[in-house]
Amino acid sequence: MLTISQRGQQMPPSPIRKLVPFAEAAKKRGTKVYHLNIGQPDIETPPQILDAVRNSDFKVLEYSHSAGNESYRKKLVKYYAKVGINVTAEEIIITTGGSEAILFGFMACMDAGDEVIIPEPFYANYNGFAVEAGVIVKPITSSIETGFALPPIEDFEKAITPKTKAIIICNPNNPTGYLYSKEEMEVLKQIILKHNLFLFSDEAYREFCYEGTHTSAMHLTGAEDRIVLMDTISKRYSACGGRIGALITKNTDLLNAVMKFAQARLSPPSFAQILGEAAVDLPDNYFDTTKAEYKKRRDTIVKRLNNIPGVFCPNPGGAFYAIAKLPVDDADIFCQWLLESFNYNDQTVMLAPASGFYGTPWLGKQEVRLAYVLNTTAIEAAMDCLEQALAIYPGKSL
Amino acid sequence: MLTISQRGQQMPPSPIRKLVPFAEAAKKRGTKVYHLNIGQPDIETPPQILDAVRNSDFKVLEYSHSAGNESYRKKLVKYYAKVGINVTAEEIIITTGGSEAILFGFMACMDAGDEVIIPEPFYANYNGFAVEAGVIVKPITSSIETGFALPPIEDFEKAITPKTKAIIICNPNNPTGYLYSKEEMEVLKQIILKHNLFLFSDEAYREFCYEGTHTSAMHLTGAEDRIVLMDTISKRYSACGGRIGALITKNTDLLNAVMKFAQARLSPPSFAQILGEAAVDLPDNYFDTTKAEYKKRRDTIVKRLNNIPGVFCPNPGGAFYAIAKLPVDDADIFCQWLLESFNYNDQTVMLAPASGFYGTPWLGKQEVRLAYVLNTTAIEAAMDCLEQALAIYPGKSL
Repeated sequence: MLTISQRGQQMPPSPIRKLVPFAEAAKKRGTKVYHLNIGQPDIETPPQILDAVRNSDFKVLEYSHSAGNESYRKKLVKYYAKVGINVTAEEIIITTGGSEAILFGFMACMDAGDEVIIPEPFYANYNGFAVEAGVIVKPITSSIETGFALPPIEDFEKAITPKTKAIIICNPNNPTGYLYSKEEMEVLKQIILKHNLFLFSDEAYREFCYEGTHTSAMHLTGAEDRIVLMDTISKRYSACGGRIGALITKNTDLLNAVMKFAQARLSPPSFAQILGEAAVDLPDNYFDTTKAEYKKRRDTIVKRLNNIPGVFCPNPGGAFYAIAKLPVDDADIFCQWLLESFNYNDQTVMLAPASGFYGTPWLGKQEVRLAYVLNTTAIEAAMDCLEQALAIYPGKSL
Repeated sequence: MLTISQRGQQMPPSPIRKLVPFAEAAKKRGTKVYHLNIGQPDIETPPQILDAVRNSDFKVLEYSHSAGNESYRKKLVKYYAKVGINVTAEEIIITTGGSEAILFGFMACMDAGDEVIIPEPFYANYNGFAVEAGVIVKPITSSIETGFALPPIEDFEKAITPKTKAIIICNPNNPTGYLYSKEEMEVLKQIILKHNLFLFSDEAYREFCYEGTHTSAMHLTGAEDRIVLMDTISKRYSACGGRIGALITKNTDLLNAVMKFAQARLSPPSFAQILGEAAVDLPDNYFDTTKAEYKKRRDTIVKRLNNIPGVFCPNPGGAFYAIAKLPVDDADIFCQWLLESFNYNDQTVMLAPASGFYGTPWLGKQEVRLAYVLNTTAIEAAMDCLEQALAIYPGKSL
């Protein structure tokens, strides 16, 4: 019998897309579905950066440099300087989305059988890239009661084995919205120095911090050769379809290795590199406007959630996600029920069950992730649906 | 000590880019370098498909479907029908370049330690993707004396072990230009049926066949569930920087597995999907013009090469590459010498030593790959340089 690989069988399906057939069926029945399940913002891509692509003038759509266009990398040095990150163009490798930065980082730092520690709940696709690289994810649990703060140092140390090669954080966090404090980042630095680990820092949502300030892993002095920054323009400029990210490190051996992975796939996409380069020239107040809009949405959704009886949602400090605990027995079943069996004035809401973001199988059963990527009017309507749904849902735990 | 992974160390550097520093130094000295080392065509990207991107009208650069836009996949069904390949939109997964199709195919069909057989010389990046997937490449040798025809069936059978999962071919071939005959394709079908293997078929150069007709692996009836087509628009439309390819198979289990890899990286690039979709509407004579141009270049370069004393170059049936045997002891050293120590009227030529395309370490030492991606005037000038260089080169084997 001809079969696919074990790896292909083990590869996890996307937890945020598994309910899509039910949403499609609901739409076919005429029900409006508010999509709070996926981090696809409705914020317009800045027209001037789309225009940079539209006005581009070349005759041949050539391969770029495998590390990305030098002109783009030089521009990015200025962007990073503005956010207090001191890097050179040679320390930046442009990747096909943040996704490829994660894959290259995993592959270049870890071998099959090596372990990576990730505070859970975590971005579900880390699981997929771990399967691709043959790496084992060791989750340590952060809790909704503490707002998903960094787990205590003891939990990290209990999880560390001779196979442990790295810790990943996403800051501010997808899916929890938690913003790690300077003190928590210093704790991570102590752990990676003591135990000789890499720290992968996914900072896709750097600009979207509503409480406190962002501490980049690149700010951790004395650990420079252990830091791998995984970045993307997808959320920053509402440019998810461009597929442009970056892997940044000051570790020369690692840069050389990542470059070989970059060469094997030839180059990152050319069109969106033009867009990314133009984005560095956006006026400094661009993020003020976007951030203010997301903060308004966060305030709206968190207030509405906590006003629903039995619902608890900690106030996320950044990104555009919130995790809420619902008074239901099984959020997977509830989310499907919302699409299959419920509507309120011909409307319903699509949420992502949080179980898919946990590595520990029994966790997150009562939790959902909400992406506040819609405007406040839509969020209010979606919360009306959720409130009505919870009032009549039969599978309630309260 | 914090170290990178074994995989990162084993990852091969690009053999076609390793001489780049010497080319840059030559240019700094004022020497014009004719680049026959890399498959970046000078043919203009059709302006109407660039315009499709430039005239695109959307507000948000969104993620596409993980399998690629449905509208694009439906259009591709028409493209494939034109070349006699019968597929549905559901059997096509759009990838980030042909590169990602290769990686997804390897990962979904093979586990670490599994083996893949490839006739050598072969596209060097197969090595890189094999290292990423932990797969072992078993080369079987095709020879310049036979024009790089498919090795005999006995050579395949000698190489097959219980770990063998697949055979890869590139047709027409990079780096040899060889076009596999219908009979050779039937031999491959018999082997994969008898030994229960996948056949990965890289058909990037399908349209560029100068002798005989192209037999796609998708034409092999009775082996449908074993065929994995790896495709790309890069060379077809001179759109290398778009990074759009496709993995196509009728094996449902494999499609489902590949879809999970596709979901993990979210989506292929949006801009170039617009370009790819527009390309399907190019007039039918588009390829006639392009093919005639490449054929003229092939005829020019092959004639010039065989007119140089001691040089032998079989006439390639397709693609835009030729491999030539030179009267030198070590083509790696000769190619570096061309850039470092030679010029003819302040001009020189950059070639790719063929050793990097062989899996067997001692093979190809006297051979080079030439990509005829420049116009005939440039090719003539490049051949003048090569002829002069060989006349005076001290490291000659004749």
